Amino acid sequence: MSDTQAVLAINQAFYRAFQQKDLQAMSLLWVQSSNAICVHPGRPALQGWEQIRLIWEQIFRTPDPLPLENDVIAVEVNGNMAYVIQAEKMVQQIQGRPMTAQSIATNIFERVTTTWLLVHRHSSPILPPPSNQAMPNQMGG
Amino acid sequence: MSDTQAVLAINQAFYRAFQQKDLQAMSLLWVQSSNAICVHPGRPALQGWEQIRLIWEQIFRTPDPLPLENDVIAVEVNGNMAYVIQAEKMVQQIQGRPMTAQSIATNIFERVTTTWLLVHRHSSPILPPPSNQAMPNQMGG
Repeated sequence: MSDTQAVLAINQAFYRAFQQKDLQAMSLLWVQSSNAICVHPGRPALQGWEQIRLIWEQIFRTPDPLPLENDVIAVEVNGNMAYVIQAEKMVQQIQGRPMTAQSIATNIFERVTTTWLLVHRHSSPILPPPSNQAMPNQMGG
Repeated sequence: MSDTQAVLAINQAFYRAFQQKDLQAMSLLWVQSSNAICVHPGRPALQGWEQIRLIWEQIFRTPDPLPLENDVIAVEVNGNMAYVIQAEKMVQQIQGRPMTAQSIATNIFERVTTTWLLVHRHSSPILPPPSNQAMPNQMGG
């Protein structure tokens, strides 16, 4: 198995743990140190595995289904670091109602001995396009 | 200068080019290939330098001031890949009016011969906290 295949396999294991609300499987996929960072859509950064784990636990307690699918846009491996960029579809509670929302995610992995582990995840919402202005004016950077 | 210092210097050069609307300086900071990816807040991924450059050009044409500040949360260097995570304050046009908005950004760099270059940027809005629900319910992952 190439490095790229190994990274994609771990990336898919992350979405499987997410969808199955499997906290134990999720825990095995992360660097369990203060270096780990996780940004959930629209939220500030969670720093350190303890904080990240606590929020996964809360997310997994919700009755709603979680991510529906992820489409890999890019994967890059360079030495002992790698990243995967993907479009995600997930169910979010918007004003108390479950709605399918699109998001985009950057997952960064580090090779620790022979295993790739998530060290940073940044997921963010794709917002509806502005109706009355050019795109870059609306979202200045 | 350590690798970490070199990455932080290039990261600051990115914000300087952004704030000064300097397309030439911005162009020198990116991997100019199809591998480059840029996600502006709320928008889908732009793939490849040509697309990315076009949108910077459009952003720099706006009359508004651009990012105000960036506070580095984490920097990590591993071989020839590095990333910087930061909180940003920037001016965004919301329904035609400039407002200061908070965002969070993941900037990934690759060392190309002796220079660190941006290969991926993911910037996303921090949304107001939900008023009537627990956070993880609101933003399911």
